[in-house]
Amino acid sequence: MFFLERKNHRTFERTFVCFGAGLIAVTLGDPAGVGPEITALAWRALRHAGPEFLLIGDPEFAARFGPVHAVSEPCQARFSEALPVLPLPLAAQPRPGVPDPANAPAIIESIARAVRMAQDGAASAVVTNPIAKSVLTRAGFPHPGHTEFLAALTGRAGHEIMMLAVPELRVVPVTVHLSLRQALARLDTEAILRTARTTHAALRRDFAIAAPRLAVAGLNPHAGEDGTMGDEEITVIGPAIASLRREGIDVAGPLPPDTMFTREARASYDAAICHYHDQALIPLKTLDMWNGVNITLGLPIVRTSPDHGTAFGIAGRGRANPASLIAALRMASDIARNRAR
Amino acid sequence: MFFLERKNHRTFERTFVCFGAGLIAVTLGDPAGVGPEITALAWRALRHAGPEFLLIGDPEFAARFGPVHAVSEPCQARFSEALPVLPLPLAAQPRPGVPDPANAPAIIESIARAVRMAQDGAASAVVTNPIAKSVLTRAGFPHPGHTEFLAALTGRAGHEIMMLAVPELRVVPVTVHLSLRQALARLDTEAILRTARTTHAALRRDFAIAAPRLAVAGLNPHAGEDGTMGDEEITVIGPAIASLRREGIDVAGPLPPDTMFTREARASYDAAICHYHDQALIPLKTLDMWNGVNITLGLPIVRTSPDHGTAFGIAGRGRANPASLIAALRMASDIARNRAR
Repeated sequence: MFFLERKNHRTFERTFVCFGAGLIAVTLGDPAGVGPEITALAWRALRHAGPEFLLIGDPEFAARFGPVHAVSEPCQARFSEALPVLPLPLAAQPRPGVPDPANAPAIIESIARAVRMAQDGAASAVVTNPIAKSVLTRAGFPHPGHTEFLAALTGRAGHEIMMLAVPELRVVPVTVHLSLRQALARLDTEAILRTARTTHAALRRDFAIAAPRLAVAGLNPHAGEDGTMGDEEITVIGPAIASLRREGIDVAGPLPPDTMFTREARASYDAAICHYHDQALIPLKTLDMWNGVNITLGLPIVRTSPDHGTAFGIAGRGRANPASLIAALRMASDIARNRAR
Repeated sequence: MFFLERKNHRTFERTFVCFGAGLIAVTLGDPAGVGPEITALAWRALRHAGPEFLLIGDPEFAARFGPVHAVSEPCQARFSEALPVLPLPLAAQPRPGVPDPANAPAIIESIARAVRMAQDGAASAVVTNPIAKSVLTRAGFPHPGHTEFLAALTGRAGHEIMMLAVPELRVVPVTVHLSLRQALARLDTEAILRTARTTHAALRRDFAIAAPRLAVAGLNPHAGEDGTMGDEEITVIGPAIASLRREGIDVAGPLPPDTMFTREARASYDAAICHYHDQALIPLKTLDMWNGVNITLGLPIVRTSPDHGTAFGIAGRGRANPASLIAALRMASDIARNRAR
């Protein structure tokens, strides 16, 4: 954060103007989940080295978990001293583990404000705490999920792509929260192309990889073995790969899904394009359960989140692990820096 | 190996009788693949410490890769000195990397002889080198694969179950070499039950685990989230788990597939029952590419194999890695010992 002391020579009034959209806006998430705890723990871990962030939430409730400093604008933050909180009143006092639909409007408003701040340059990025979709749906939230809401807010509905990253692997599922049967039914050359193109652009812009290398998974065992165990590699996936190559994108595949996540194989690509949720998530979580970051590609703003849910079952018991939120904050900061270059 | 020197008091003739079925019978596999090299390398690695084995193959060809000793019965083996080979003539001189259907009869006969030796007690176990099914199919081999042939030879067709094991994980896929679409179509409570029961029995008998703990995967993301992302957990998998519990089997599930292979989760079970090839193989190979062992459960004989194929592309170039075959030999020896207790 940089501050410029500006003396108004006519009035001799001193005002502070906030320069540099250094702070990350962190959303409330469901206050009955682990969000408040992990936010406080992340502040403790990052207070000196950064990246700096502020929470859009209830300062009084947040103060249960650590020192907070209510601020009316990012400039007032003194991050090393206390967690800066932009006040957003809650309708009901949260009880850990017991989500309350009365707080749904605040949960939603926190997301909307964070997005506006990122759009206005008042925040460098948005990091979202976990929400429980069912709680919001009951309050009339019309979006299938967090990510779709962010896409709608930024005018990019339908363009959002989810990447999940741990230090050892980046995966991008073409379909996400569908049953396996539906994911198979939706397998589509155009969707693979769209996902791969967005991923390629994001690897360049957000991850500063000059010549990104993609790997596209097969769908079937051994990638179908020349059509003897399923033909989607030939009819759907292969044509997408051919198109990408014609566009000059460095892409390998369709790769046998079981051997493409070994250490040797991972060294050969920057991101793996996968066809269904668990094809992407099994290797990622098997490699690293705790440091996963969810990154939304295809938006004008930078948005990351921890890759876990509200964890109502352990909320408020001092058992929540902030590693994924910390990783999400660091990655948001890195991406914002890469975009600014 | 134990030998008993028996003096015939009438003739003063000395004969040696072979006791103890200590040796493992290793099959030829496709001699144009990596089998000959990895067998020689495994002999070199195990010659002093064991487990001891013999190859059923062509001594002259095997001699290209290391010292061999042609024997007419297991008793004659001097394992520490040379690789014992039970002669089986090849129709054509093998060329590494170029499979020759003329050798299909020998490849098949090697498997049949190894099985007979295990059935007769002349071998403690069978370890099979990789074959290329397409080569055998052209020669009239009617079985869908190696494992099915072994099941047929031992009168257990349809009872074979494939387990794959690395030091950190054991997985048992209910369906194996089917397209993902077919695997979904074949999802069946009875098949899950049969697989889980055979696995449970094998963990007790072959792995000496007194009270085995099974984990059964869900099929869909997050195990379907109470039916909101697919209902197979409720309609097909859940009933299998309920039946197993009624039989007194310790079984967890249906578990979210993406989080069931983390270190913490793996510590809670002895084997994971999976519904399709890659659900089992992605985590296994991601964790450990080199030490995988394929174990056939449900047969009267002990059979293991390396979990890789013929690797024609690197055969004969000194690049093949014997780790998986060595692990297969050690596991076969352990299982035979556990069964004998």
